[in-house]
Amino acid sequence: MRGWRSIGAALILAGVCLGAGAALAQEVADRRPGVPPRPLPDGPVVLDSAEYGQIRVVALTRRLERPWSLAFLPDGSMLVTERPGRLRRITGGSLDPAPIAGTPAVHAEGIAGLMDVALHPDFAANGLVYLTYSKPRPAGPTVALARGRLAGGALDGLEDLLVLDPPGSGASRIGFGPDGMLYMTVGGAFESSPENALRAQDPNDLLGKVLRLRDDGTPPGDNPFVGLPEHRPEVYSLGHRNHQGLAFRPGSGELWVSEHAPQGGDEVNVIAAGRNYGWPVVSYSRQYSGQRMTEAPWRPGMELPAVLWVPSIAPSGLAFYDGERFPDWKGNLFAGSLRFGGLPRTGHLERIVLNEAGDELRREWLLAELRQRIRDVRQGPDGLLYVLTDADDGALLRIEPVAGDVAGSGGG
Amino acid sequence: MRGWRSIGAALILAGVCLGAGAALAQEVADRRPGVPPRPLPDGPVVLDSAEYGQIRVVALTRRLERPWSLAFLPDGSMLVTERPGRLRRITGGSLDPAPIAGTPAVHAEGIAGLMDVALHPDFAANGLVYLTYSKPRPAGPTVALARGRLAGGALDGLEDLLVLDPPGSGASRIGFGPDGMLYMTVGGAFESSPENALRAQDPNDLLGKVLRLRDDGTPPGDNPFVGLPEHRPEVYSLGHRNHQGLAFRPGSGELWVSEHAPQGGDEVNVIAAGRNYGWPVVSYSRQYSGQRMTEAPWRPGMELPAVLWVPSIAPSGLAFYDGERFPDWKGNLFAGSLRFGGLPRTGHLERIVLNEAGDELRREWLLAELRQRIRDVRQGPDGLLYVLTDADDGALLRIEPVAGDVAGSGGG
Repeated sequence: MRGWRSIGAALILAGVCLGAGAALAQEVADRRPGVPPRPLPDGPVVLDSAEYGQIRVVALTRRLERPWSLAFLPDGSMLVTERPGRLRRITGGSLDPAPIAGTPAVHAEGIAGLMDVALHPDFAANGLVYLTYSKPRPAGPTVALARGRLAGGALDGLEDLLVLDPPGSGASRIGFGPDGMLYMTVGGAFESSPENALRAQDPNDLLGKVLRLRDDGTPPGDNPFVGLPEHRPEVYSLGHRNHQGLAFRPGSGELWVSEHAPQGGDEVNVIAAGRNYGWPVVSYSRQYSGQRMTEAPWRPGMELPAVLWVPSIAPSGLAFYDGERFPDWKGNLFAGSLRFGGLPRTGHLERIVLNEAGDELRREWLLAELRQRIRDVRQGPDGLLYVLTDADDGALLRIEPVAGDVAGSGGG
Repeated sequence: MRGWRSIGAALILAGVCLGAGAALAQEVADRRPGVPPRPLPDGPVVLDSAEYGQIRVVALTRRLERPWSLAFLPDGSMLVTERPGRLRRITGGSLDPAPIAGTPAVHAEGIAGLMDVALHPDFAANGLVYLTYSKPRPAGPTVALARGRLAGGALDGLEDLLVLDPPGSGASRIGFGPDGMLYMTVGGAFESSPENALRAQDPNDLLGKVLRLRDDGTPPGDNPFVGLPEHRPEVYSLGHRNHQGLAFRPGSGELWVSEHAPQGGDEVNVIAAGRNYGWPVVSYSRQYSGQRMTEAPWRPGMELPAVLWVPSIAPSGLAFYDGERFPDWKGNLFAGSLRFGGLPRTGHLERIVLNEAGDELRREWLLAELRQRIRDVRQGPDGLLYVLTDADDGALLRIEPVAGDVAGSGGG
């Protein structure tokens, strides 16, 4: 009997109630009265920052439908995914009216749809674009990774590199690491049933894992579980619930990944080969009914999060800042937040100050006054920060220093 | 050898660095650039609440110097402590110019001074008022509990009921429980030295404890450690760092106590007789240098917090709401916040929604827009909420529903 099965049995015997009604409870929770998101102001907004003085927030476009992720192209333009299934291009701050052709058909419902976009490290030479999405199939949708070649406003030769089976319906982020490998998160180990949550502990299942792949989607030979029976060779780390953000830390090259807990206990983990991040065996979180998700928040052998949120902020995209336009923010981690505290209200952009070892020192909330749901955050090649808001009329925001061009690095 | 000593030795051997320079690090941290508190607006302010629509905040007075706590008198007036050592009376919303005479001399420096004030359950008959304060002594200041009789604008016959020895310099809250006993928190088990922090684990030392006392300051015979060698009979629970708030939950009568961790890991605990709340053996917090305070955030046998904050909000006073003016807030826990996230900025009033069992469901930030440090929060006899801001020109704020008198309970 495999280890995770006995853990699972112990969990169930211990009466850890992995609430079958959790999804329903969440639905009910979302119908509570709340403070709705505010319309964005028309012009630029100037806001205070504790360690930068003032920042200016400019909306470059407000016509993106549920934008999910973005990627900067070598020519200074950018690609943006829209969850309903479109890939858009923004050139010189202006949204091209026609979506890029050749993208996959997606299952767009709830949190599912077109998700992440990433460029091949040699994109300038080979034009390869990677997408994660929820793939419609007769047997039901599942998470997939696809690749195509961007040429003349279309993706050519799109092909699936990986299709999750058994299927799953969580979020998926991708990014190429300093080692040239493609890291892919496969979330969706929700507590809708104990069996589904426990898939995160099964090394023979890709759900609830971080995967490490070659650029063609196949597992490299130096992955931690290669050659072990009943272990998928793509698996790099296990014990995740639903990842939402992914970034590599400048300098160390470490992979940092954010994930959602049900209620309290959202995390950012520093991902190491073969490690177990605990879900659903240990968690700081609570079910939507208030009951603790697990009896113990931690046990030896499980990794501690680098960043923990109690209460939840529903973290989304992650980015490390290493530009010149905000010198006081160098080395800081930025995390988008969809909503705070379990209330059906809005989120913010969280700035997390780390020491050289990557330990947390302090945090600041930015953009909270705008009352938006923040879906992603990235540093642009111009050293400014770019933020996507999650709405039917979603915006691409740019954050600039008010003091002007501090380091003369150009851009904009 | 006593248990806590071997735990302590293990801790030290395990290399858990209880940073000797933590106090200094905090001082340095407080000199970082930040967003300063804002002056309060002149008139009432209307703010949004996720579950009440709008609330109105009215400043009744702005002339309190570092107010710390308040108590409502049967005649509708209230007593407010000022940390520099004055006890003030507010009648009909107006501050009496002369402080109440007969209060103790206090050691007022940094966080020390006059702290909590509580009335005897039979105050209407006996006029007894209880105070906690930092008592100046030739050998150095220490926390003390005093009692006097309020008569004609003065405290008569003030006497110390308990003086902490060995001395300590943390915060101290008091409150009479449904059992008629006086519960007193004695904080100050800071990590300035491992020895000082470990006092919280020593049942023969009152520092870092919750005490349970008769109304004359003596321990009742049914306290959990009465009769045990090397256990102080006043001790009710152990393993606390620095408590800042105290409230009894309506219905259950449970004692809920908030406490500060160094950085991340602030807690509210539900206090049960004889239990160990873990400090400094287990903690979710980090040192000001970023290093984790302990290797494990929890171990079996230590109590889990009912409410956890990561990042820190520096929680202060606590109150349960059970009035009629905010029907949607019934049963909610309110916690003041002095500052958020480790930054030298301001706090808010946190509303925590609990289910009937007392499990957390969700949270909301109130008053954050005012950019104040919140020191205490109480429900008035009129069903409105009263809040003290921590400033040299501290204010007493009243929170009212905008919709008017919802339940016709009068007041104001």
